[in-house]
Formats: sequence, structure tokens, C-alpha cells
Amino acid sequence: MDKIHGVIPPMVTPFKKNGDLDTEGFVSNIKKWNDDKLVGYLVIGSNSETVYLSDDEKLELVRLTAEHAKEGRLVMAGSSHESARGTIELTNKCARLGAHCALILTPYYYGSAMDSKAMIRFFTEVADNSEIPVLIYNVSKFTGVNIGADAIAELSKHKNIAGMKDSNGDVPQLATFLRVADPSFQVMTGTYGAWYPALAMGMTGIVSAMANCCPNEIALTQELYEAGKQKEAFELYQRMFPVNAAVTGTFGIPGLKYACDYLGYTGGHVRNPLADCTSTQQEQLKIIIDKALQ
Amino acid sequence: MDKIHGVIPPMVTPFKKNGDLDTEGFVSNIKKWNDDKLVGYLVIGSNSETVYLSDDEKLELVRLTAEHAKEGRLVMAGSSHESARGTIELTNKCARLGAHCALILTPYYYGSAMDSKAMIRFFTEVADNSEIPVLIYNVSKFTGVNIGADAIAELSKHKNIAGMKDSNGDVPQLATFLRVADPSFQVMTGTYGAWYPALAMGMTGIVSAMANCCPNEIALTQELYEAGKQKEAFELYQRMFPVNAAVTGTFGIPGLKYACDYLGYTGGHVRNPLADCTSTQQEQLKIIIDKALQ
Amino acid sequence: MDKIHGVIPPMVTPFKKNGDLDTEGFVSNIKKWNDDKLVGYLVIGSNSETVYLSDDEKLELVRLTAEHAKEGRLVMAGSSHESARGTIELTNKCARLGAHCALILTPYYYGSAMDSKAMIRFFTEVADNSEIPVLIYNVSKFTGVNIGADAIAELSKHKNIAGMKDSNGDVPQLATFLRVADPSFQVMTGTYGAWYPALAMGMTGIVSAMANCCPNEIALTQELYEAGKQKEAFELYQRMFPVNAAVTGTFGIPGLKYACDYLGYTGGHVRNPLADCTSTQQEQLKIIIDKALQ
Amino acid sequence: MDKIHGVIPPMVTPFKKNGDLDTEGFVSNIKKWNDDKLVGYLVIGSNSETVYLSDDEKLELVRLTAEHAKEGRLVMAGSSHESARGTIELTNKCARLGAHCALILTPYYYGSAMDSKAMIRFFTEVADNSEIPVLIYNVSKFTGVNIGADAIAELSKHKNIAGMKDSNGDVPQLATFLRVADPSFQVMTGTYGAWYPALAMGMTGIVSAMANCCPNEIALTQELYEAGKQKEAFELYQRMFPVNAAVTGTFGIPGLKYACDYLGYTGGHVRNPLADCTSTQQEQLKIIIDKALQ
Repeated sequence: MDKIHGVIPPMVTPFKKNGDLDTEGFVSNIKKWNDDKLVGYLVIGSNSETVYLSDDEKLELVRLTAEHAKEGRLVMAGSSHESARGTIELTNKCARLGAHCALILTPYYYGSAMDSKAMIRFFTEVADNSEIPVLIYNVSKFTGVNIGADAIAELSKHKNIAGMKDSNGDVPQLATFLRVADPSFQVMTGTYGAWYPALAMGMTGIVSAMANCCPNEIALTQELYEAGKQKEAFELYQRMFPVNAAVTGTFGIPGLKYACDYLGYTGGHVRNPLADCTSTQQEQLKIIIDKALQ
Repeated sequence: MDKIHGVIPPMVTPFKKNGDLDTEGFVSNIKKWNDDKLVGYLVIGSNSETVYLSDDEKLELVRLTAEHAKEGRLVMAGSSHESARGTIELTNKCARLGAHCALILTPYYYGSAMDSKAMIRFFTEVADNSEIPVLIYNVSKFTGVNIGADAIAELSKHKNIAGMKDSNGDVPQLATFLRVADPSFQVMTGTYGAWYPALAMGMTGIVSAMANCCPNEIALTQELYEAGKQKEAFELYQRMFPVNAAVTGTFGIPGLKYACDYLGYTGGHVRNPLADCTSTQQEQLKIIIDKALQ
Repeated sequence: MDKIHGVIPPMVTPFKKNGDLDTEGFVSNIKKWNDDKLVGYLVIGSNSETVYLSDDEKLELVRLTAEHAKEGRLVMAGSSHESARGTIELTNKCARLGAHCALILTPYYYGSAMDSKAMIRFFTEVADNSEIPVLIYNVSKFTGVNIGADAIAELSKHKNIAGMKDSNGDVPQLATFLRVADPSFQVMTGTYGAWYPALAMGMTGIVSAMANCCPNEIALTQELYEAGKQKEAFELYQRMFPVNAAVTGTFGIPGLKYACDYLGYTGGHVRNPLADCTSTQQEQLKIIIDKALQ
Repeated sequence: MDKIHGVIPPMVTPFKKNGDLDTEGFVSNIKKWNDDKLVGYLVIGSNSETVYLSDDEKLELVRLTAEHAKEGRLVMAGSSHESARGTIELTNKCARLGAHCALILTPYYYGSAMDSKAMIRFFTEVADNSEIPVLIYNVSKFTGVNIGADAIAELSKHKNIAGMKDSNGDVPQLATFLRVADPSFQVMTGTYGAWYPALAMGMTGIVSAMANCCPNEIALTQELYEAGKQKEAFELYQRMFPVNAAVTGTFGIPGLKYACDYLGYTGGHVRNPLADCTSTQQEQLKIIIDKALQ
């Protein structure tokens, strides 16, 4: 698997007001993103409310993504299950529906037992049995678990583990992963909050929630940096930072979905226990977005 | 639904060495427990490695429990899903297979958004649509989320919410839940670590991991306390405490399963990412158990 | 040193509006408490804003306490310093001013290094060199550090370590300390939030912030429990619980000081970075107190 | 106060085996550092075991630093006290002994009360009354408190607050501070772990524990970056990273002091509750250092 150079959105999953999957809205997003500066799509990731989906819905979304993604774009599936057994099963189903690689969450439910040995045991069995390359997904704010550098050092040597997405925004830890990992292993950032420092450390791939609504600004940050225009890249990073903080922190997924709606994509409704943004929150978000994009 | 007076094991799920469900072992446990001082069974709870099961496996275990449980014993199903929609669907399937009530985890994946409003929204929709009474399950060590007293105060008034299991062992918080909840709402402890103080506060029900391997000692603690023999109850509590700490803390689920094997039940293997106890761990556990039960 | 049977207030330190020590107010409190159902005084504890005092002020408060405490009451000094060296020096100065024993915080600044070995090293050197008996003070909400049961097991055997005050309200941990400690070692609770369960486990001493403003209610809880009136004790505990939560949690030390003022003691002002209760907060507190004491 | 461009060591405080201050060793360090690529000295900072010093010892160290520092080098004093009153008093004593500015810890003992309002209240009173410029010191691993961007935005406008040292290594947060702060306010990193990304974001000052033993490697990282040799700068950063992790994380202050001894400075002994490195730890550290410096 080639290293990823560019931006991938962890696609939101639009729901109708009654909670049903809005597959039309989902496909319309892909078609619109096909014209944006993106290099692939992450389907059923954290920002897709995947934990709120049934298995059938997950597979349907993977199928639709593979069908509608522009040629040459990478289809990455968040085919995670807490067990190795369940992960392998779901991953291979996704592979047969057209997914090119799988982004697999660190197991986390029995968090105190999820040490480096467990991580190595889990990802090794998954990678040994997956029909497509596997990437590790580290996101402590959702899982309460943080994968250690020793596990990354070991797992990065596995032929079927292509890299990782780290969404913690812990830049010194990213530097550590880069230092200990096998050269064949790609470390990507999973948040725009770490994008400028990641670029400065030579990283080239990002999977960022904000890529749902502002894909081209993320791509431009990279273009500027790689063209030697570091100051401009940093200014753009600082300008977009509040939007990223709003759609990943303050307002979360409901905020991200509203930002999509506001910027011409289809965010749609969320599923309970989440709640759609109130009109007050919508107004606050508009101000943040307008200020960044003016 | 009547208030629970007694002990319920959150049943372990035995797996074969190859990872398949060991339904025979599972049924043999129920038959053996039918002769122990228990008042019901929790199937597909946290200690059942439920997050490692497929939906079909979950339903099969519920069916088997309803089929083999001694008459008069309560069948409680841990039919949780992160979304209200998924929880309702699974709960009602369990109901039709014979579950008497459902124990539902606080939603937790998007933890920072899981405030009291989200809890109320989630459990209200679930309870409104569940065909059997619902109990709330609070277990911060696995979820990273803690339900607030204001949410309990509100939810405890719902006609189809019968109570809660709190596994945090935070006794002042238990006192608070008791204070704010509607009298119709039952607060149960979910850990033997809080059993003696819970009894002292007038609580009568417990769902405890240790009830898999030592059900009668938990029941005896209650008998002694309720017979006015507080000192003996406290001594027994102190004596069994290290076993509880071992099978819920130090050695976790692999330890609990080994303790089951050691004491004549069928613990069986765990699924990856967990690993079975090493022989060293088994020896350590035996010493702790032997000392407590001598 | 005899075991403590009863209630000790960790005395607030009244300041004047300009931030100076209000020694008059301080002494008037002691005189008033001398008529309350208390068995001793903790001076320069956590609730005394000790971290905001100079060394001279600390010693002056110890001197005044020893001078004005009713005969037979225990004078306990919170003569902590992060180093063993500094703790010994301050403790022995306090001893010469009349303190009967010292309550010493677990060291905590370099928190990740403060393991059981460090605790044993620190308290052993302190106790070896202290002219008065030493008690260990565990309060994780302020220190971020929690002393382990193995350290307590070891330290409880030291001849000059008389016991501990645990303010975490973690009742299963209290049970563990009781189980592993030498019989000569007294485990006290440091919060009313754990008082009823502590009594149920046979504990007899408490150092509670709420004893500044409501000493007799705490003493009465104990009287009732020890007279076999457990139900009445539990009802009183539940009734006073919100006051305790308010003056130790929601409103903190400014709330505790206002409650003192409201109930006839001298709370006085706080020092910056704390701020006195606003009038809105005062009204909220009054409602909570009035409801509990009606 | 001019912005700092370069490296400042938070000086270790050497103790003799009996725990006494080793002022000779302290002065010899300054003399040796006077020949290294440093721009100033932080005395009585976190790495100076300041919490283990008496007030007299603190002042003596400040006096010695001012006396022996090479002309033109900045003398920064960590003259913190938990109260504004105590901080002002100690800071002005330090000023009169020759300190040029003060690095003041966020207050933290009553951590849950230390919100942005408290930070603004505290630092405003301190800065209003300090005879020398004040810098804010944010170090959550020791304090458990993290200053918010809203407080930095407000405080950065104060004429007598010159900047901050942030030791959290949270690079997205550094970017935020840079974004919201007044242009007159300098954001410095307090850990080499964030030095390369900090340089990439245009930051110019660092106060790093590792500057005690490896000052010139930190200065060289900056020289390389600012000369446009980013790749070399990043390689050096990656090469020295394990040393930094060892002397600030794994082995803490005892490790830092041993590294000083090993590299020709005077680390000396620590004070109880800390313990000197064991010989095993010393060997592990030597390997890490030798590998980085080879």
C-alpha cells in the first residue's frame, strides 16, 4: 500500500429526522467531495456515528462509498469490533465490498487490561487474517486508551499493518511514533489541530473531521507548507483552528454535521443519545466559520 | 417489577480454545447456579465479554438462559447498544426470548457529550419503547462516564425504569442516588467491594462478578447482616474482599474465569484481545481464593 | 496515643478584608467550639488555607490553638512540608508550641514519583524524627496522589505513626486500609460523606470540614449509630449530606467559611486566588443549610 | 522586558549526602554554564526541588545566581507561593537580590476552584504588585491544573506580565496561546519534547530541564532550524528526545541530577521523599545518553 499524501474525511453519516439512514444524502456528499482536494474516504469511522449503526447499515455505507468514490481514491473502512474475531469478520466483509484498507480502533472496553501486550496480540491476529492492509487507530478521547510506543515499534514491522491514525493531537508522541516505527509504517494525524506541526515533522497524511466541511483548506495548508511557504501555512492553520476546535470539541458531531449543512454538504440529523445543534449553537458556529473563511 | 432481594451473577461466557462459544459450558453453569443462593441471572453483561460477541451469539445466550434458569429466577439481559434505536431493537428481541428486564449501559463513546441531558434523552426513549422494564447500568471503569444524580432523580420517576446497577463502588454516591431517587426505583450495587456498606444503607440487591464463583458467600454476607449479625457480616466481607479485588481488578475477566474453573464452574477461555491467565497468575489466584475460603 | 473517638474540625482560618490574619476571630471560634461536642482541633489543615499562610502565621495559629483549646481536647497540627526535612522541622516547632500530634500530607508535587516506596521512605524518616505521634493524611482531590494499601500496611507498624485521615470518601479503600493495617493504627475518615458507612465498619474518628459549622450533627450521627439507632443515624446522615457536599464540593472553602458565619462562627474572608462567596452563592447555601437543619 | 531568544536551564539544586544545600556545587554549575550557549538561568523552578527548600534557602540560591551569572544573562526566579500575598512577598525579595523576572506557577492546591477567574484574579494581583516582570508557569503534570486560553488572552494584556512557560508539551494548545495572546506576550515551551514544533511555529525561547546537562544540543536545534536546516534540526530533536524523556519522565529529577553528574556538572543528591538513582538506573541512563551524544 502506497503512503497517503493528502486529506481524507472521516465521513459523517446523515440520518433523517426519524433516525433512518439518509443514503441519498450520503451519496450526494461523496459526489460533492469527488470534486474537492481529497485523496480518499474513511467510511464508518468515529465521526460517522458508527457506534450507532447496525452491522447491515455499516456494510451498506461501505458499499456505497466504494461505488461512488472517484477513481483512484482510497476507500478506508473503520471495520472495528472489540474482539479480533469480530474485527476480522467485519473487515473481510468490507474488503469484499470494495474497501482498500481498514482503520481499526485500539480495543478499549476492558481498558486497564489493554496494555501493549494486548495491543500486539490483537492487531497481529487481525492483520494476519485481514484480506486488506490494516491501519491502527488511536483516539484516547473516545477510548480512554493510549497505545504505547513499544507496541507501535513492534506492530509497525508487520507486513499487513500499513500505518496508523493518531487523533490525540499529542505532537511529542507523534514524534516518538515516527522515531520508533519501521520506515514502511505511515504515521498520520487524525486531527487538524496537529496538522501544521505534523507537516513540519515531514508527515503527509491526515484524516480530519473538519475535512467533511472544509476539505480544501486542509489541503491548502499542506500545499503551502510543502511549497516552502511555512508562514502562510501557519497562518492558515491558525485561522482554521477555531473551526476545528468547534466541530471536534465544543459542538462535537452535531456541530460537524451542522457545519456540513451550512457549507453545502449534507450533515443531516444525529441519532439519540446525541442531539442536533440548537439554533443558538448554530448561530455560534456560523460566526466561527464565517470568521475563518472570510 | 418487584425489588430484587439477593444476589445475581453477571454470567461469564465460556469460549472454547478456538474462540467458539461453549454453549455446553454455559448451560452447565446455569444448572449448577440453580442450586446456589441466587435470585436471578444477568446474561450478556460486562463480565460476559459481551463486547466480543456477535448479535446472534448474544441472542443465543439469552435464549439459553431463559430456557435453563430455575423457575422464579429473574432473567436480566444486558441488551445495550450505543444508540437508543439499537438498544430498543436488541432489548425487545431479548424480551421475546424470555428476558424479564434489561440492564442498559450509560451511552459513552462520545463521552464529553454524555451529560445528564443525553442520559435522560437516551434512557427515556429506551424505556418508552422497551417491552420489559429497564435498569440503568453505571460502570465508569469501563465507560469513562458517570451518570449524575440529577439524571437519576429524573429517570427514577419513569414507570418503565425499575432501578440501576452501580459498579463504581463509590458509596457516598450510592447514598446520594438513594436520597434523590423515587422510592419506586431500586439502587443496586454492582460490586462486592461495596456490599457491606450497601447493606448498612438498607440496599438489598447485588449483581457482582464474584457471584460467578462464590455466590453463596455473597448471599451469606446479606443473611448475616439482615439477621443483625453485623460484625460477622463485616468479617466475611473483609475475608472475601481480596477475592473480589482479584477477579475484578488485578486479574480481571481472565482471573474471574479461572476462579470459576477452580471452584467447579466452567470459566473457559477468553477472546483476543484478552488472554487467559498464565500459570503464574493461576497460582497467585489460588492462594488468594484458598486463604479466603479456608 | 489513644484512639480518637469523636469529631475534630479542620479549623478554618479567618482573614480580614485586607488579607491579614484575624486571630481574634480564630480564638473566638475555639471558644465557641469548646462548648460543642468535639474531641479536638486540627490546626493548619487543608481547610485552613494553610498553603496561603507564612511559616510564622502557621506557628501563631498552633500556639493559639494550644492556648485556647479546652482541657483534654487533642491539638493536631497539619505541619506538612513537601520534604521530610521541612516536615520534621515544622512538626517539632509545633510540638513545642503544644501540638499533641501531627497530621502529615502525603508528599505529592512530583506525583508520578510518589509511589509506595517514596511514601514509606518519607513517613518513616518523619516519624523517626518527630517528637509527637504522626498521622498520615490522604486527600487525592488536592494532591492527585493516593497512598497504597501496601504502604499503609508497612507504615501502620511504626511506633510513632498513630493512624491516618483519609478524605477520599472511597469506602472500599477504607475497608482495605482497615484490613491491612496494624491493630494499633487508627483509620479515620476525613469527610462526612463517608461517615455513616465508616461507623458501620466500626470506625470511631472523623476530621470533617463540616465540623466547623455543624459539629454537633456529626457527633449526633455517631451517638445514634453507636446506640444501635442505625436507621436514625442514616436519616441524619442523608439529611446533612447536601450541606457537606456544598461546603466541601460545590462552594469549597469560601462556602465553608460563609456557612460558619451564617451559623454563628467566624468564617471570615479568604485569600486570593480564592474569592469570597457571591451573594447569590450565599443565598443558595442558606437554602441548603436551612433545609438540612430545619 | 525583551523577548527571550534561546535556552534557559531550570537549575537543579545539588544537595550533600546529609541533605544540606551544596552551594559550592551550585555555584560551580553556574560557572560552567556561563560558557555554554545559554541566555539566562531559572533558579528555584520545578526542577530545583524548590518545594523541598526553606524560604531562606530559596533566597540564598537567588542571591548566588545573581552574583555568579555571566553579565547579560537573565535571572529568572521561580518565586511562587500558593497565595498572591505570599507570591508578591517572595518575588519582591528575589527582585532585591537581583532577579530580573519571576516565573510564577498557576495556583493549584484547591484545584477544582482554580478556574480562569481565579487565574486572572491571582496573576493580576501578583503582577500589579511585583517589582519585576512576571511570567506565568503552566505545568499540569505537577499541578493537576491547566490554564485556559481565555485567561491567557486576558492576562497577556497586562503590562507587567511578560509571557509564559508552558511545560505540558501540548502543541495544539501552544498554537492556541499564540493565537489568542497579545503580541507583547511571549509564549515559551518548558520542555524539549515540544521544541522542534515550537520552533516551527516561530517560538524562540525555551526553559528545559535537559538544558541542565545538554544545553548546547538544545541551542543547536534552534540554530539549525533558524538557519533553514529544518531536516537537521528535526534529526537532532529526534536524537535527543530519549534523553529528554529519561530526565523528565522515566527517571525524573534523580535522573536529571545523575545526567548532570555524568556530563560534568554537579547534580548531587536529592531530598527525601525523592531517592537518588540506583546503580541500575544509572547504567540505563548512561546508555540512553551515550547513544544520543555519540
